[in-house]
Amino acid sequence: MKHLDVCLTPDLLHLHKLDNSIVVVADIFRATSCMVTGLAYGVKSITPVATIEECKLLQDRGFIAAAERDAHKVEGFDLDNSPFSYMNERLIGSEIAMTTTNGTLSIAKARASAVKVMVGAFLNLGALANHLKSEQYDVLVLCAGWKGRPNLEDTLFAGALAEALKDQFMLREDGTLMAQRLYNQSRENLLASVSNSSHVRRLQRLGIHKDIAYCLQTDLYDVVPVLRGTTLVAMN
Amino acid sequence: MKHLDVCLTPDLLHLHKLDNSIVVVADIFRATSCMVTGLAYGVKSITPVATIEECKLLQDRGFIAAAERDAHKVEGFDLDNSPFSYMNERLIGSEIAMTTTNGTLSIAKARASAVKVMVGAFLNLGALANHLKSEQYDVLVLCAGWKGRPNLEDTLFAGALAEALKDQFMLREDGTLMAQRLYNQSRENLLASVSNSSHVRRLQRLGIHKDIAYCLQTDLYDVVPVLRGTTLVAMN
Repeated sequence: MKHLDVCLTPDLLHLHKLDNSIVVVADIFRATSCMVTGLAYGVKSITPVATIEECKLLQDRGFIAAAERDAHKVEGFDLDNSPFSYMNERLIGSEIAMTTTNGTLSIAKARASAVKVMVGAFLNLGALANHLKSEQYDVLVLCAGWKGRPNLEDTLFAGALAEALKDQFMLREDGTLMAQRLYNQSRENLLASVSNSSHVRRLQRLGIHKDIAYCLQTDLYDVVPVLRGTTLVAMN
Repeated sequence: MKHLDVCLTPDLLHLHKLDNSIVVVADIFRATSCMVTGLAYGVKSITPVATIEECKLLQDRGFIAAAERDAHKVEGFDLDNSPFSYMNERLIGSEIAMTTTNGTLSIAKARASAVKVMVGAFLNLGALANHLKSEQYDVLVLCAGWKGRPNLEDTLFAGALAEALKDQFMLREDGTLMAQRLYNQSRENLLASVSNSSHVRRLQRLGIHKDIAYCLQTDLYDVVPVLRGTTLVAMN
């Protein structure tokens, strides 16, 4: 039987063997929710990069560039880190380069050793789960967290994916068990559940209520983003 | 107001600033439960060391030596890692050297930068909480985990301590919030709650049910172990 495991932050990724695993990266507020949204709305590809410098280089080469640090858009770039910015007709067919505080760094880390890297969010939970059932590989859910620390919303997503896959995968580790319990405890009202989390407090200071509520919606899209080389595309 | 934070594994300790913090190390199954028990039963001091070699050196210098790796007693040492082994008249007044897979390593890591290092277990939860209220410092609960990974029982303890201190300390981070929720969800029956955790499965294969049930009892002892130099003693 295949295994599913959860890594609560990229700072613990070194503890996981990935040579038979698909890594699903989750940065619910807001990088992977943006990626899912963008690809669902017709963006051609999203190239996640770890640094602002790399993002700038791709911008100079014609990419539409999105750079976020500490929840703010970095000056000189085209897009911020709100999923609503990705519902834009002018982005259809475009190539986007993206760097964020946590999410793109996690993708860069996972790429080094995983069989495949996919991107998850509540927005594409069901489609992603269905796809993972059809794969022969183990799954590691990599929570992007916040600057190396675990966070609530990514852990809840990991729990949700574990719940969706518990009949097809062995769930053996305590990180998975804890994520599942936290999710099951609050699945009826995720928005209330995250209201006192640290990241929601940070985002609320920025007035991004709308983003938070949006990112906690389940199964809006069927898109499954997968990394091909260095670029995320929607899996056919 | 003072802060309380939780570090889910020693592999994340680098993310925490400790220069105004007391670190409470918890390795519920079983190192810190042994330490609390031993000091409560009249052991004079316990010197935690990170390696088997250091433990052997102290044994050669006359310490009673306890060494555990992967839940097993290491050959050539005097004591195993069962709290019942510490309820022994011949240990009264003795000096013990101890190395374990996770707990003593966490103490060694914390010692490098914390204001003080204390040892916590469900067995001394109330006494420890009362003492921490009287201190002027912030608190970091360091869960020993399992080989760098978070585990359920240490996280539950962190949640229990956070609950006990929530009126006196600010609890701001998601790690703390998650630990509290997991604890509150299962506080009425901790034993059932840990029954499918990875470490309990490991220990049950060794037939240590009795140890598990014992380590989940709350407030058996008033002892508060504190590190003085390199040695744990009961705080007066």
